Amino acid sequence: MSHSLTPFFEPRQVAVIGASAAEGKSGYVVVANMLANGYEGKIYPVNPRGGRILGLPVTRSVAELPEGIDVAVIILPAEQTVQALRECAARGIRHAVLLAGGFAEVDEGRARLQEELVDALRETGIRTLGPNTSGHTSTPFKFTSSLFPLGKIRPGKVSFIAQTGNFGTHTMKYILTGEHFGPARVIGLGNKIDVEESEALEYLGQDPETSAIIIYVESLKKPRRFLEVAREVTRRKPVVMLKGGATEAGRKAADAHTAAMGSEDRIVDGMLRQAGVVRIHEYTHLVLAAKAFSMLPPLQGNRVSFLAPSGAMLTVLSDYCTGHGLTIPDLQPETVRRLQEISPALIRMRNPVDIWPSCGVHGVEFGYREGMEAVLRDPNIDAVVPIIMLTRDIGVPSPDFIYDLARKYPEKPVLVAFSAAKECMDLYKDSLEPRGVPTYPDIEQPFETLSILARCRAALNRP
Amino acid sequence: MSHSLTPFFEPRQVAVIGASAAEGKSGYVVVANMLANGYEGKIYPVNPRGGRILGLPVTRSVAELPEGIDVAVIILPAEQTVQALRECAARGIRHAVLLAGGFAEVDEGRARLQEELVDALRETGIRTLGPNTSGHTSTPFKFTSSLFPLGKIRPGKVSFIAQTGNFGTHTMKYILTGEHFGPARVIGLGNKIDVEESEALEYLGQDPETSAIIIYVESLKKPRRFLEVAREVTRRKPVVMLKGGATEAGRKAADAHTAAMGSEDRIVDGMLRQAGVVRIHEYTHLVLAAKAFSMLPPLQGNRVSFLAPSGAMLTVLSDYCTGHGLTIPDLQPETVRRLQEISPALIRMRNPVDIWPSCGVHGVEFGYREGMEAVLRDPNIDAVVPIIMLTRDIGVPSPDFIYDLARKYPEKPVLVAFSAAKECMDLYKDSLEPRGVPTYPDIEQPFETLSILARCRAALNRP
Repeated sequence: MSHSLTPFFEPRQVAVIGASAAEGKSGYVVVANMLANGYEGKIYPVNPRGGRILGLPVTRSVAELPEGIDVAVIILPAEQTVQALRECAARGIRHAVLLAGGFAEVDEGRARLQEELVDALRETGIRTLGPNTSGHTSTPFKFTSSLFPLGKIRPGKVSFIAQTGNFGTHTMKYILTGEHFGPARVIGLGNKIDVEESEALEYLGQDPETSAIIIYVESLKKPRRFLEVAREVTRRKPVVMLKGGATEAGRKAADAHTAAMGSEDRIVDGMLRQAGVVRIHEYTHLVLAAKAFSMLPPLQGNRVSFLAPSGAMLTVLSDYCTGHGLTIPDLQPETVRRLQEISPALIRMRNPVDIWPSCGVHGVEFGYREGMEAVLRDPNIDAVVPIIMLTRDIGVPSPDFIYDLARKYPEKPVLVAFSAAKECMDLYKDSLEPRGVPTYPDIEQPFETLSILARCRAALNRP
Repeated sequence: MSHSLTPFFEPRQVAVIGASAAEGKSGYVVVANMLANGYEGKIYPVNPRGGRILGLPVTRSVAELPEGIDVAVIILPAEQTVQALRECAARGIRHAVLLAGGFAEVDEGRARLQEELVDALRETGIRTLGPNTSGHTSTPFKFTSSLFPLGKIRPGKVSFIAQTGNFGTHTMKYILTGEHFGPARVIGLGNKIDVEESEALEYLGQDPETSAIIIYVESLKKPRRFLEVAREVTRRKPVVMLKGGATEAGRKAADAHTAAMGSEDRIVDGMLRQAGVVRIHEYTHLVLAAKAFSMLPPLQGNRVSFLAPSGAMLTVLSDYCTGHGLTIPDLQPETVRRLQEISPALIRMRNPVDIWPSCGVHGVEFGYREGMEAVLRDPNIDAVVPIIMLTRDIGVPSPDFIYDLARKYPEKPVLVAFSAAKECMDLYKDSLEPRGVPTYPDIEQPFETLSILARCRAALNRP
């Protein structure tokens, strides 16, 4: 299957125009990232000074490049980018990534530079990402054009379309260092003079390496086309979007001119919903959603069971579920019987599950393990959230029992939250997440996550 | 200043009735916690077996206790608690903490046991916390009756009233291990047959050690009295409340019978707002609010400035502020001039502050330090949130410059969030928080916090 954007993500030969031997410069970092990711194609650094960069021989000009370069990554000041783009076209290169900023995002004078770029595209037919993008990533091809020192990017099955460089830079760095998942493809749109969100979504929709799509945009360049593509893609893959106010809207937001914005935003909201796009409203939820799609099986319904070490948590989280589209159904009689069996008689077991008395009698591992298994077996339940109380003075079981249960019931999402000692939570995270069981420091986060997943499921199954 | 509840929080002599020499038993943990906290009064463990517990000589019966015991902590099965309470009263003890569960929270048979307790209270006039409480804490007096292995409780200036044991047990353990603040007083209400939230609030309202009050309740025992007390206290100290559905309501919530609940809840909401109580809706926000009151100066207004390393964050967080009662005002001309001075000319500096280009030219520390100082000096700004991008490949400055700025502008809250490498965020947290500058792993959290603080300020200053 080939798409017009495929060459960006499966290049056999790339040129880095404006490559640099100076450590720390973007032209150096781009080459270093390609090497760190084990890119198996050929890299041609281009710099009039020649020599070597990170061991690779440098070509002095675009004209001297060999035939068959699939992608040119251009890291030159804005003023030189148009010329470089025309040279690339002349050399037969059909795809370019324009990493320089300094175009329309700055001011009107700069906008004219961007118009020159657009003219060059029209004349040459070259396809471009950017300008003002921080690059793109394709982990199935061990390739990235990111200008941020990311090092090796952990491969994954979720892809990002972002009208921000963050997912090629610092937010990706957070994901790689603070979480245990990674992306399939990342498409940093930048000023999107050519490739924009609807074509990117179409590409990811047919991409076998992408199982879910996370989008950050501040505007839709071709709204009608985007909705048309989304309507189709969202029947096969979950699509989650955070829409920031555009720059002007952000300023308006800051100035509290909210009324007009609000109504315009409601229209966008309705159109996205009709197209099956699940809208979120917090930046942090971009990462929560990506984490869920990276680690969890698809949610089959919105019926949740959770086990907590305190009545207050059971109460507060019941309130939370009710307000966020999740139900806490009654359990089957057999499940209740089993829960009652493992619990002191004083406690009347039901959903949600008051698990600590059982732990008090039988131990922490026994209580959570048997309690979780009882509700995981229950056909009334679609997802299970244990909130595990961990403190060394009481006893910290090996997290293996949770992994074993998640593997034994692979069709039901298990999301783990905690209470008590922070260092034990970290230990569980580092043990469970590399094995695909997500954990959360805040007790609301598993439910925020399930709420997003439930909306995605409704969108996938809409009539 | 003395209040009817003062003896609970300043006991000179305490008896632990049901103390145990068996490590791990509640009757052991209670004594161990008192010792771990350096309680300077006298502890009398009571157990018919006699001997020693944790080095302390054991008294065999309540009758054999000396004169002048201020508080009896009773850790006996529910069935024996009434008798013990009567014995305490006979021995002249006027205050008791009833740690046993197994009363009205279980079933109707058990409710009768609780009625016997109430009869005993009426007849003896003894004041009680509980039953079914996990204890109470008073760090100014180095005292706790918690039955959870907490060890040394870090002292602080925020107090908790909780109709849950969590703030004497696992949630407090999280605060002590995962955060860098602690409580002044913690009042675990339990089944509140005597001391309830309105008297507790009245006590904390006049307590010089308490500067802010965090409440978790599932019901108000004396709603009219509570609102009366709250109306008065909230003019002097912020009072934040999370109200969980009561047990039955929680069940209702789970069963999705939301309509009736919803309207009842709206009435509660209106009454609390009129009384100046700031209501929150997430369990995690109980900790966020406590952290803010523990570390930050009072917020003087809702005018925020923030500095972020990306336009998308500026945009998304502007949207967030607008939706949460915070404004992002224009900066004074002098501030804009200074920001422009430290930034490449291409960037048009304004509020919120696009700081990364400055960091690119002058270094990470220079950009954030000079940018933060510019907005901290601006009289249009009440609070500042730097979102600091940290990654070793670019350079991680010592966090001292942030501490120095927070100390130089002590009247303005500074809340620190991050992007990029997780281990650097942890380093900043561990460096800044013990010195009183709060940090947040998620970029929305400083704004959630400021939103709560802004509502508290409005409540304090209401007409």
